[in-house]
Amino acid sequence: MSFNIIKEISVCKGKLYKLTHESTAVKGTMSLNLYVPSTASKGKIPTIYYLSGLTCTPDNCTEKGFIQFQADKFGFAVVYPDTSPRNVTWPEKANVDTNNWALGEGAGFYLNSDKFENFKMFDYICKELPESLSESEFGKTIDFTERKSVMGHSMGGMGALAFYLKGITNEISPYVSCSAFAPVANPTDCPWGVDAFNFYFKDGVKAGESLDPTLIIKSDAFKGKKLDILVTTGNSDPFFKSQLRTEKFIRAVEDNNIEGVSVNIEDGFDHSYFFVSTFVPQHCAFHAQKLGLI
Amino acid sequence: MSFNIIKEISVCKGKLYKLTHESTAVKGTMSLNLYVPSTASKGKIPTIYYLSGLTCTPDNCTEKGFIQFQADKFGFAVVYPDTSPRNVTWPEKANVDTNNWALGEGAGFYLNSDKFENFKMFDYICKELPESLSESEFGKTIDFTERKSVMGHSMGGMGALAFYLKGITNEISPYVSCSAFAPVANPTDCPWGVDAFNFYFKDGVKAGESLDPTLIIKSDAFKGKKLDILVTTGNSDPFFKSQLRTEKFIRAVEDNNIEGVSVNIEDGFDHSYFFVSTFVPQHCAFHAQKLGLI
Repeated sequence: MSFNIIKEISVCKGKLYKLTHESTAVKGTMSLNLYVPSTASKGKIPTIYYLSGLTCTPDNCTEKGFIQFQADKFGFAVVYPDTSPRNVTWPEKANVDTNNWALGEGAGFYLNSDKFENFKMFDYICKELPESLSESEFGKTIDFTERKSVMGHSMGGMGALAFYLKGITNEISPYVSCSAFAPVANPTDCPWGVDAFNFYFKDGVKAGESLDPTLIIKSDAFKGKKLDILVTTGNSDPFFKSQLRTEKFIRAVEDNNIEGVSVNIEDGFDHSYFFVSTFVPQHCAFHAQKLGLI
Repeated sequence: MSFNIIKEISVCKGKLYKLTHESTAVKGTMSLNLYVPSTASKGKIPTIYYLSGLTCTPDNCTEKGFIQFQADKFGFAVVYPDTSPRNVTWPEKANVDTNNWALGEGAGFYLNSDKFENFKMFDYICKELPESLSESEFGKTIDFTERKSVMGHSMGGMGALAFYLKGITNEISPYVSCSAFAPVANPTDCPWGVDAFNFYFKDGVKAGESLDPTLIIKSDAFKGKKLDILVTTGNSDPFFKSQLRTEKFIRAVEDNNIEGVSVNIEDGFDHSYFFVSTFVPQHCAFHAQKLGLI
């Protein structure tokens, strides 16, 4: 349950920690980054979990998302987990194409695979990581388990939405609020999601339904609910039509009379961290308000 | 003199252009990035030139420096040139170690080599690039040649200081203000500079003296001058003692009774873009004031 501090870096007014730890869930060493703001707040500092997209490590958003300035401004910690286990030994029969960046390492899809024992990213992100951080030295000043929100990009936007919604129905420990940049909003109906679910689950896409934000939010359990979700997607995103399915998510929200879900389609923006960083201040202000920081 | 727009990207409220053009100075194709803010200002938009450090391309600071938000806030354009010519054909006798990241490509040292015809980065940055941009479509709304300031990191901090000082003595077209992050402040007295000058100049370090900010600023021409320079260096920078020589620059400024030079040694900061991006808002506010934007 202990974390190794690989590097401590001064950023903005706080400290960035590059950490590794041994994960029971994924049966291996996991890397993550943790930003601790300089805030001297009353009580513990709340946490935003940032779930990255395909191919990313903890470093992409840490270096290019510029959340740290917002973390200082509002007084929250940021956890940047990895997107999959690493240095995986694949079963001989798996026939994994390690050149396919949308499957395997860097592409864990925040699910619990029933085919590959290392790929238990759902358990890792929702349970093991918050609990381990909470038990570490960092847990003395930071609240990793209760006062927490979730934010994600692309595949990580899918994860953020799915985890938040599962928190609402108490399947997992709840998040205060959720935001997503260009999320894969309906993964059972797009190539990335279909390929991933067929790869990771014995029952394929059928098993993926329980992680599909559009399918979850249109279920009876959410009818007329008041939620706290902010989604931003650029309409020049090359994956806008083929992979993201934003329009299906919007329709599901409307059809189920759900309140408190804002979906903003931003003109001219793409899928890159130029897009993410542009809207990071807005998303962080949203979370800060929901977390009671403003 | 014309520029090819390789990519136009929405960032913040403006547009980022990835450009290439044919350079006469370095006899080859050069890449650069240009950020155009959304500002509808009276007259032309002023420009900040950002000179990058060793190993960098135009993309490092564009992705990790986070200057775009400040450019929108204050209303200036940002030019991110490359750090050297690329795809250089070396003379057979040069015996260039292409694995040495501190010499050759990515390490142009902002000088005019008298040994390698492509390495005329001084002429390229100070003359050809501003003039070419000025003659391009972008020159219709942006002032690239008159109302301009210069900012740089590490090797680029050396370039920024040297260029600004040479502008004061009218050797080149002057810059309004200068700022540097962890500049190589006294390159004739550090390994990076000594190796580079010996590599690029027939007369070695002696020829490099004319580009050494500490030697220039201690000359009689600057005695009692009022300048507009801001320098920030972290005291946990691994190159602080071995390469940067900040203390020698400070002493030269003091000994020559120069005003308007602020050198801030910041506790705990390193040499990375985490350091640069932390102080970008402060440096941009400094330039904005000198450029008359606030």
